[in-house]
Amino acid sequence: MRRILIPIDGSPASIKAAEKAVELSKLINGELIFITVVNMPSEDKYAFFGMNVEQQFTINRKEMIDKLVQEETKMLSIVVRNLDIGNLKEAQKIIVGKPAEEITKCAAEEKIDYIFMGRRGFSPVERFFIGSVTQKVISSAPCPVVVVNG
Amino acid sequence: MRRILIPIDGSPASIKAAEKAVELSKLINGELIFITVVNMPSEDKYAFFGMNVEQQFTINRKEMIDKLVQEETKMLSIVVRNLDIGNLKEAQKIIVGKPAEEITKCAAEEKIDYIFMGRRGFSPVERFFIGSVTQKVISSAPCPVVVVNG
Amino acid sequence: MRRILIPIDGSPASIKAAEKAVELSKLINGELIFITVVNMPSEDKYAFFGMNVEQQFTINRKEMIDKLVQEETKMLSIVVRNLDIGNLKEAQKIIVGKPAEEITKCAAEEKIDYIFMGRRGFSPVERFFIGSVTQKVISSAPCPVVVVNG
Amino acid sequence: MRRILIPIDGSPASIKAAEKAVELSKLINGELIFITVVNMPSEDKYAFFGMNVEQQFTINRKEMIDKLVQEETKMLSIVVRNLDIGNLKEAQKIIVGKPAEEITKCAAEEKIDYIFMGRRGFSPVERFFIGSVTQKVISSAPCPVVVVNG
Repeated sequence: MRRILIPIDGSPASIKAAEKAVELSKLINGELIFITVVNMPSEDKYAFFGMNVEQQFTINRKEMIDKLVQEETKMLSIVVRNLDIGNLKEAQKIIVGKPAEEITKCAAEEKIDYIFMGRRGFSPVERFFIGSVTQKVISSAPCPVVVVNG
Repeated sequence: MRRILIPIDGSPASIKAAEKAVELSKLINGELIFITVVNMPSEDKYAFFGMNVEQQFTINRKEMIDKLVQEETKMLSIVVRNLDIGNLKEAQKIIVGKPAEEITKCAAEEKIDYIFMGRRGFSPVERFFIGSVTQKVISSAPCPVVVVNG
Repeated sequence: MRRILIPIDGSPASIKAAEKAVELSKLINGELIFITVVNMPSEDKYAFFGMNVEQQFTINRKEMIDKLVQEETKMLSIVVRNLDIGNLKEAQKIIVGKPAEEITKCAAEEKIDYIFMGRRGFSPVERFFIGSVTQKVISSAPCPVVVVNG
Repeated sequence: MRRILIPIDGSPASIKAAEKAVELSKLINGELIFITVVNMPSEDKYAFFGMNVEQQFTINRKEMIDKLVQEETKMLSIVVRNLDIGNLKEAQKIIVGKPAEEITKCAAEEKIDYIFMGRRGFSPVERFFIGSVTQKVISSAPCPVVVVNG
C-alpha cells in the first residue's frame, strides 16, 4: 500500500492537491495522511537582543497556539469530509512547528511514498511563485513531491 | 539625498544588511528608514469553510498582535542603537501586515532609492535559500534591492 | 490510460525521475513519453544592438544544433533502454527550443496527466536549488509535476 | 575606491542594472568591471552513457564558442559605449564558463564591493521570476548583490 502525505493549509491550491491525491490513491489503493502545521512567532530571537520578553507575551503565545490548533483541527476535518475519499484509509494530524520542517519529518517517520502539495499557499496575487513551504519541502523531502497548481 | 529602506526581522542577515546600508549611506549622505512588519495568522480563511471562529480567537489574535508590536518596537530600537549611524537621519516604522507587501508599499510611498535586505530570514539550516520575503520584495520592488548575505 | 511526460537532460536526477515514473506507470498502466530539449544561444539579441552577426555564426549555430540533436537522440535511447519499462507503451521526442516552454507545450498538446522531473539539472554543487527549468515547468504546467530528488 | 561588477547578457534588465551601477558609481567614485560569460553545452555528460561523441561535435563546439566570444565582445563594447560613464574607470571581460560560477569567482578575485544584476535574463514572459543566474549569484556571492528590475 502506498502512503500519501497531503499538507493542508486551507488554500485552494492545497485542496486541489488533495483532490489529485485522492484520484491517484484510488488507482493505487493509497493511504492518505493529512497534515496541518500551526506556526507562531516565537520569543527566542528577543533573547539575542538582551530583551526580557514580558510574561504576558508568552502567555498570549500559548493561548494563541491553542486557539489556532482548535480552528485548524476543525478546518482540516471539514476539508477531508468534502473530499470524495470513498473507502480509502485516512488519518489527520495537527502539528505545532515550522511547516516545511514538520512536513519533511513526518514524510520520513511515516515512510511516505508521495507528498501532494499546492504550488503556493495563500498568495493569489503572486501567481507565478512557488510558495516558500513548497520550495523547502521539494528541497528536503525524502520522497517525490507532486506539485499541483491551484 | 538618497533614501534607504532597511527591513529588520532581527535575523543576523537583516542586521548585516543594516550595517552595509549604513556604510553606503555615509558615502552618499543617505537617509535611513528602518521597517519591521508584524504578521499574524488571520481568521479570514476559516469563513471559506463555513466555520464560525470563536470570539476568543479574534480577541487572542488582537492581543497577540499588540504584544508583538511592543516587543518588535523594542527590538528595532535596540538594533538601531547598536548600529554606528553617526549623524545620518533615520526613522523607525512598525507595521502590521504581510511583510513583502508592506515593504514594497513603503518603498513606493517613501520614494525609496535602495532597499537593503538580508538574503534570508530565520532559517540558518537552509543556507542556500533566498528567503521568501526577500524573493517577493525583489520581484515587486519599485527600486533596486541590495541583497546581503548574513 | 494515464500519460506520463518525462523530460530527460541526462542528469542523475532526471534518470531517477524516470525510474520513479516507470514504477508508478506499472501500477496505473501509464504511457511514457520521454522528451529531450536541445537549446542553443540564438543571434536574435544581437539585432537589438544594431550588430550584423557574421554569416559564419549562423552556419555554426545550425551545425551545432544538428550535432546536439544527434548526440541527445543517442543519449535518450540509451537512457530508455537502461530503464526496466517492461510492456509499457513509450515514445521518445527530441525538440529544439527553450526547455521549460517546450516541456509545458508538449504537456498540453499530449494531454499529459503527470510530468516527472528531477529537482535540478547538472549542478551537483548547488544541491538545495530547484533547477530553473523545473521551477518554470512547475509554474506553468497544465498538470501536476512530480519532483524527484536525484 | 569601490569596485562594482556588472554582468551583462544583453537583456534589457542587465542594461538597466548597468545604468543604476553607473549612477551610484558617480556618487562614490566607483570602478566598473563589466563581465559577459559565454556558455556552451559540453560533451562531458555523454561519457557517462558510454557514448563516443563524434569528433565533429567537439570541433563544432569549439568553433561555436569562438564565434560567440566574438559576438559577445562586440555586444559588450556597444553596451558600455551607450552608457554615460563619464570619467569612471572601467574594464570589460569575456569569460567562457558557467555564468553564476564565473561571476562569483570574478567577484572574489577582483575584490568586488557590489554586484549589480538584472532580476532576470531573457524571459520577458516570466516576469515574476528571479532569473536562475541571479538566484545563484545571490546565494554564493562574497559581497552584496544589487538586483535591478528591467
